Amino acid sequence: MHPFNYYTPTKVIFGRNAEEKTAGLIREFGGKKVLIHYGGGSVVRSGLLKRVTDSLDTAGIPYVTLGGAVPNPRLGLVYQGIELCRRENVDFLLAVGGGSAIDSAKAIGYGVANEGDVWDFYDYKRKAEGCLPLGVILTIAATGSEMSDSSVITKEEGLVKRGYSSDYGRPRFAVMDPELTMTLPDYQTACGCTDIMMHTMERYFTNGGGMEITDALAEGLLCTVMKNAEILVRDPKDYDARAEIMWAGSLSHNGLTGCGNDGGDWMTHKLEHELGGLYDVAHGAGLAAIWGSWARYVYRDCLPRFRRFAINVMGVEEAGTDEEIALKGIEALEDFFRRIHMPTNLRELGVHATKEDLALMAHKCAVGVNGAKGSARLLKEEDMLAIFRASM
Amino acid sequence: MHPFNYYTPTKVIFGRNAEEKTAGLIREFGGKKVLIHYGGGSVVRSGLLKRVTDSLDTAGIPYVTLGGAVPNPRLGLVYQGIELCRRENVDFLLAVGGGSAIDSAKAIGYGVANEGDVWDFYDYKRKAEGCLPLGVILTIAATGSEMSDSSVITKEEGLVKRGYSSDYGRPRFAVMDPELTMTLPDYQTACGCTDIMMHTMERYFTNGGGMEITDALAEGLLCTVMKNAEILVRDPKDYDARAEIMWAGSLSHNGLTGCGNDGGDWMTHKLEHELGGLYDVAHGAGLAAIWGSWARYVYRDCLPRFRRFAINVMGVEEAGTDEEIALKGIEALEDFFRRIHMPTNLRELGVHATKEDLALMAHKCAVGVNGAKGSARLLKEEDMLAIFRASM
Repeated sequence: MHPFNYYTPTKVIFGRNAEEKTAGLIREFGGKKVLIHYGGGSVVRSGLLKRVTDSLDTAGIPYVTLGGAVPNPRLGLVYQGIELCRRENVDFLLAVGGGSAIDSAKAIGYGVANEGDVWDFYDYKRKAEGCLPLGVILTIAATGSEMSDSSVITKEEGLVKRGYSSDYGRPRFAVMDPELTMTLPDYQTACGCTDIMMHTMERYFTNGGGMEITDALAEGLLCTVMKNAEILVRDPKDYDARAEIMWAGSLSHNGLTGCGNDGGDWMTHKLEHELGGLYDVAHGAGLAAIWGSWARYVYRDCLPRFRRFAINVMGVEEAGTDEEIALKGIEALEDFFRRIHMPTNLRELGVHATKEDLALMAHKCAVGVNGAKGSARLLKEEDMLAIFRASM
Repeated sequence: MHPFNYYTPTKVIFGRNAEEKTAGLIREFGGKKVLIHYGGGSVVRSGLLKRVTDSLDTAGIPYVTLGGAVPNPRLGLVYQGIELCRRENVDFLLAVGGGSAIDSAKAIGYGVANEGDVWDFYDYKRKAEGCLPLGVILTIAATGSEMSDSSVITKEEGLVKRGYSSDYGRPRFAVMDPELTMTLPDYQTACGCTDIMMHTMERYFTNGGGMEITDALAEGLLCTVMKNAEILVRDPKDYDARAEIMWAGSLSHNGLTGCGNDGGDWMTHKLEHELGGLYDVAHGAGLAAIWGSWARYVYRDCLPRFRRFAINVMGVEEAGTDEEIALKGIEALEDFFRRIHMPTNLRELGVHATKEDLALMAHKCAVGVNGAKGSARLLKEEDMLAIFRASM
């Protein structure tokens, strides 16, 4: 096992109508002037935004609002948010939405709390020395950003998508009401379930050793997500299933499922980032479309983990060679993706890439990881290209 | 499922020589003058205390020390600690040890940060409005106090043992080096493993409903603890097994294994508290000695949970009636207790209670829970007495 740090200070308030606690939580964490940051119109249309602003009005907490955070949130809006916070003397951020609004708010928080260009952090030039305190009302279970230290921002110029991680960015509180996720389109729900699973699986498929307890928690989490994702295909209004998925989303990316391992593989995410950059596909669907090709390319180099995954997570019988068991596990997960209407290749994802596109994505991916990355198997540019080709 | 709050702000630094980070962590959390609080001589004899004070000397952080925290830590020492902190202008507490030192430090922290008698909090008279910040260097994996909100203090007069829980008392950081637990006597290691399991099992055996993901995490944790507890019987110096147990101890009592359930049963703990009060037995051993009798008394009223426990945790085959499966699970856990040399009744615990003792314990227990308590089955004084009798 590897030494690790575990730090999840976010106070979670979970359950029906949890959002009614928001004003009290802002006070508890010292907020006196709030920027409410959200994404598209859904939080407006659903009435959630009005309920939140009403509750802040009642509590006498002044606020300004900034909407417009989009999937793959943009740097331009982050600059706007920083400017607005400075002008209005905002001392607390409230993100209302999913990963886009939360990540955008984190970037605004870094920008306000530090001098200079906030993009420096995402450009690996320097480290943040603080962040404006941030609270979250979560409306989409997927990225786990509500408890995580990470955020991903896209710079419009050249569509450069970069992540930055810092404990300063971990939200002070996260309000999670599973009912708020019930109005999501089925496709987005399934994308979220895939993203949640992949956050744990990226940590699970390694060659670097780990901890038994972390594996046990990871396997339990994955089984729970699969079971409840299928329930939501049949009944999107199932409150308990929504709750299971929502809580799994936070636990999958707050660090718990990586304690004691080598940091994980993360190559499915890296490959998908390039897909997302070129085609703007939904992140979870992109992950599902890539994973099988990645898994078949690397499983021989990480056979004990793929074998264990097949048996403990996918319920494959312990019969045949390790390779056969591992392959059955990969097939079983692809079957699951199909059952929740996720793509298992680029064609099903709706991406018709040219040879040149594939080469460009592999090249950008290799550059993005400084040449090579991966713990299940170390992948170089030629490997990345082979996986993209296999995923056609 | 039930609504829940989840709040585990403790920063965990886990791995070999993690204690070397202590001075930096105290600075990070703003400590300028430290009270180092510890228990018996083992942290002195092992050289750990000297390494800690040396590192604080090197870092230029002033401190005072207070040893003497005993199992079932005493109120008198808490008063001494409060007095010492006030006299020396201490603004940060560092507990070096296991649950006794940590719980005692929490109580000192409440006493310093609040006016009036600190026992008021343990006497349910009022609530703390703060606590001196506290860090921990953990040397025993058992109580989970290093991440929990709870502490248990015993008032010498009448040997009144009471718990108080508050988020203010959650440690700011916990330094966990599994090597520090290697010198523990085998009996104490096994007691710790039992305590860890019981923190999860008290939350698991309920009739109030819960969450699938919480069950899955709980079952994974229990299986991991059992496997590694047996490894430590054979090889107490196994670093990885020490690490698994140590991390399980924190996760078992920081709230994770209770998310979405009804709060749990906790009657095995309540019954053991009375045993501990009258005979000063080791807490973990007392729990093991009581559990089987409790389980056989209540399992019919909580059959689905006992059946699930038998199959998913104890590996019992799904054959026979639910009652038969449940009973096999209870027997299997008692067999496990015997394999790690834990008692499964009062005789094996070394307690030879008179009829009058049993009646007194049952009565005190009933008074302590205001008449009745328990989710697996609601227990009144007569039930408590029956369980004590069955455990002879």
